[in-house]
Amino acid sequence: MQTKLDQLRALLAEISDLGGAQALLNWDEWTKMPPGGAEARGEQQATLARIGHERLVSDELGRLVDEAAAQTDGLPYESDEASLVRVARREWEKARRVPAELRAEITRTSSVAEHAWVEAKERSDYAAYLPYLERNVELKRRYAECFEGFDGFEHVYDPLLDDFEPGMTTPEVRTVLEELRDGIRPLMADIASRGDAVDDACLHGHFPIDDQAGLAREVVEALPLEEGAWRLDPTVHPFATAISRSDIRITTRYDESYIGTSLWAVIHEAGHGLYENGVARELERSPLCSPVSLGFHESQSRMWENWVGRGRPYLERILPRLRERFPEQFGDVDAETLYRAANKVEPSLIRMEADQVTYNLHIVMRFELELEIFEGRLELTDLPEAWNTRMAEYLGVEVPDDARGVLQDVHWAGGTFGYFPTYSLGNVIAAQIWDTAHAALPDLDGQIRDGELVPLRDWLRERLYRHGGKFMPKEMIERVVGGPIDVSPYLRQLRERAVEIYGI
Amino acid sequence: MQTKLDQLRALLAEISDLGGAQALLNWDEWTKMPPGGAEARGEQQATLARIGHERLVSDELGRLVDEAAAQTDGLPYESDEASLVRVARREWEKARRVPAELRAEITRTSSVAEHAWVEAKERSDYAAYLPYLERNVELKRRYAECFEGFDGFEHVYDPLLDDFEPGMTTPEVRTVLEELRDGIRPLMADIASRGDAVDDACLHGHFPIDDQAGLAREVVEALPLEEGAWRLDPTVHPFATAISRSDIRITTRYDESYIGTSLWAVIHEAGHGLYENGVARELERSPLCSPVSLGFHESQSRMWENWVGRGRPYLERILPRLRERFPEQFGDVDAETLYRAANKVEPSLIRMEADQVTYNLHIVMRFELELEIFEGRLELTDLPEAWNTRMAEYLGVEVPDDARGVLQDVHWAGGTFGYFPTYSLGNVIAAQIWDTAHAALPDLDGQIRDGELVPLRDWLRERLYRHGGKFMPKEMIERVVGGPIDVSPYLRQLRERAVEIYGI
Repeated sequence: MQTKLDQLRALLAEISDLGGAQALLNWDEWTKMPPGGAEARGEQQATLARIGHERLVSDELGRLVDEAAAQTDGLPYESDEASLVRVARREWEKARRVPAELRAEITRTSSVAEHAWVEAKERSDYAAYLPYLERNVELKRRYAECFEGFDGFEHVYDPLLDDFEPGMTTPEVRTVLEELRDGIRPLMADIASRGDAVDDACLHGHFPIDDQAGLAREVVEALPLEEGAWRLDPTVHPFATAISRSDIRITTRYDESYIGTSLWAVIHEAGHGLYENGVARELERSPLCSPVSLGFHESQSRMWENWVGRGRPYLERILPRLRERFPEQFGDVDAETLYRAANKVEPSLIRMEADQVTYNLHIVMRFELELEIFEGRLELTDLPEAWNTRMAEYLGVEVPDDARGVLQDVHWAGGTFGYFPTYSLGNVIAAQIWDTAHAALPDLDGQIRDGELVPLRDWLRERLYRHGGKFMPKEMIERVVGGPIDVSPYLRQLRERAVEIYGI
Repeated sequence: MQTKLDQLRALLAEISDLGGAQALLNWDEWTKMPPGGAEARGEQQATLARIGHERLVSDELGRLVDEAAAQTDGLPYESDEASLVRVARREWEKARRVPAELRAEITRTSSVAEHAWVEAKERSDYAAYLPYLERNVELKRRYAECFEGFDGFEHVYDPLLDDFEPGMTTPEVRTVLEELRDGIRPLMADIASRGDAVDDACLHGHFPIDDQAGLAREVVEALPLEEGAWRLDPTVHPFATAISRSDIRITTRYDESYIGTSLWAVIHEAGHGLYENGVARELERSPLCSPVSLGFHESQSRMWENWVGRGRPYLERILPRLRERFPEQFGDVDAETLYRAANKVEPSLIRMEADQVTYNLHIVMRFELELEIFEGRLELTDLPEAWNTRMAEYLGVEVPDDARGVLQDVHWAGGTFGYFPTYSLGNVIAAQIWDTAHAALPDLDGQIRDGELVPLRDWLRERLYRHGGKFMPKEMIERVVGGPIDVSPYLRQLRERAVEIYGI
């Protein structure tokens, strides 16, 4: 006899299966699909998304959640069962708040807007893009209005944020990003005062794709994902996705003239994969089988990329491999030179190409602009000017045209607001976890230098990965580091590295 | 305002999208998936199949078919609209006949039986496999009983056949296969009387995988599938599948010591792909967007493989490519030697390795055994003996053990009966179409010799491919060749080739 909890599990498993199939349709689209498949693929994606959503907002799911809740009443908060009911209820309630027509209009509009954005960016024509952006913002306002009175939401931006960082409020994120901004700006000034102190010439030159691919494979193998649970493929815009917990797809891009693109992108994406691959098997085929939030997801890609992958011990470990594969480039390079090159700081126009220090200012200004827009303090007609002013103020760079300014990212064209801050939240959380890991594993640096990455991975699994999406971000950070989100470890780590490299 | 026909189209499009996603899940499983993904993949497949099936058997679909029929009443039989309603109604009626519990039990049982078969085959242990086979047959009997009074079904085997060859009856197929058997047996005897007249040594040797893959790619490019509408990947058991009409996935296997495996398998699978890729765009996202039947599907894979790909003109065309890539093997080989090697006839134990003449006797005996089983004339305990007797009688070979006998194919373990005959029906239909194509394109041989395969493809598109699944097999054969299914062209063609090669 199936209990109500079993029935709930079965329905959620169906939704999860549909999600896995969608992940594969998407992975294939960007790695394997012949161009002829594009149109039908869009329809297949839309159909699976619609069917999954129908199930998510169904009366049946709401009823089963209530009935299963009676059954799990009294179980510990962190038990798989209580967590499943709790998380499913919140997802159901959120999904039910939004009328199907509004959701469909958001999807349609953002798809049209993305196409308009591609053209507008090509011609650097903000005016042509403006009406689409206005429509996106208007629809997202209406979306936000659906959540009046939900779970303590107070700010118009809260529901947008909540889709990526459940339970994080606008004031909380504002505080974090302000502290980050106010810590990074003086750090940047100190670094700038040292002039061109870092030469990263070793990373630029000629790196045959096949050799880069061989290196990338070695890097992922060593990271270490479970054997037989991943694959690596080239793509245009790198991403990682989990078709299921033990089927991780990592993608990367190879730039023949710059090794940094593939090397650190692979570590970044494998970091995402390590998290997904570390979720407890018991949580498979459920909404709990995924990271806590985008911020947490990003904390792991960035921790592996920046604190492991650009750290001295890892670079000492990998230098012989680089010398072996690219003797002309790295034959005469020592570990110190590589370390300095990997951590060069230089303000630039494009977020996607920014170093890890200045990157945060790209995020902060986007967050601030989003807030001003949704709080009604900034008209969209004035957005390019506000963008350019902020770029000059925070990064000291002049924006030559909107294509390299306000039009550079696809996010707003896709109607995605509240997403950008998760990148910097990820940086902040990564640093907190990195400190905690260092305290727990006193010989962590030595282990990394010896290529022993399993102890770190296993510590992360035990503390973080295995719990999947059981907890809210604020609960999870307490559990992992024993305190709330805190910018200071990140600022301290960035400064320490800058002291070493730039002698500030 | 959506008409009922529009609503029917939308529902069928959803089912079609789910089918496309399933095709991708399956393709990925056999070409790209890391082994860790297997378990979750099975669940994802089952969920999508279940959701598609729920929609297919829904009251809503039945109602929409009735309502749309009123709307399409008076439209020509071959119109897209009338065909859609007609085909959807038949699929709905068939699907509704089978209780969900029986369908679920068939799926469950065949999955268990397939695992039992793998083990039984390894140990050549028919007795261990017997109970599973018995269960499969019993369930398929119950399945067949569901169709009492449906569409003229009279024989217990009719419903099984109908799942692969809609509208073909058991007596019709029996007649075709008997004529085939009675024509091929004397042909085989004539060939056997010539002893080892054919030397296919040039096909055996050392063929590096990379070179084979390069050749395979060239072969598919030339066949010609639409540009940007296909890809080719290695796998264990070659297959072709359409994720959508313009997204054809061809797979092949490379045997380092035998070029025939990849060369003709690629042409075979590309033949399947040419058919799917040739369906009219207007039929996309509907049940009409697929070949008429398995027999017709196979007719195209076999026509391209055997009548194009093993024909003199094609081999003359491809010989320089073979010489270029494998100079040691083909440097001294002339076109005649290659032609003879490609058409060597030799009775053997294993269907999958059989040449195109003896292959049909493997099929005939399976069909005869299936009929005897379902007509109650053969006990399953006696099946191995019946198998071995028939092998000796038809093919003149002695079966050394059940692994290389009755246990060699997965089909019966999967509960699939009525499928085997479609392979030979495909051969018969291929020959009829080949004759008709030759009459319509008088310079076909010359075109093939010059690598001009577009005229043949376009003729096939016009006559056959573009119609997708609009017609029943019996209607389609009339439309393509102007007469009913007929074994004589196939027997004549086989004999002509044997006369040339064996001088019989």
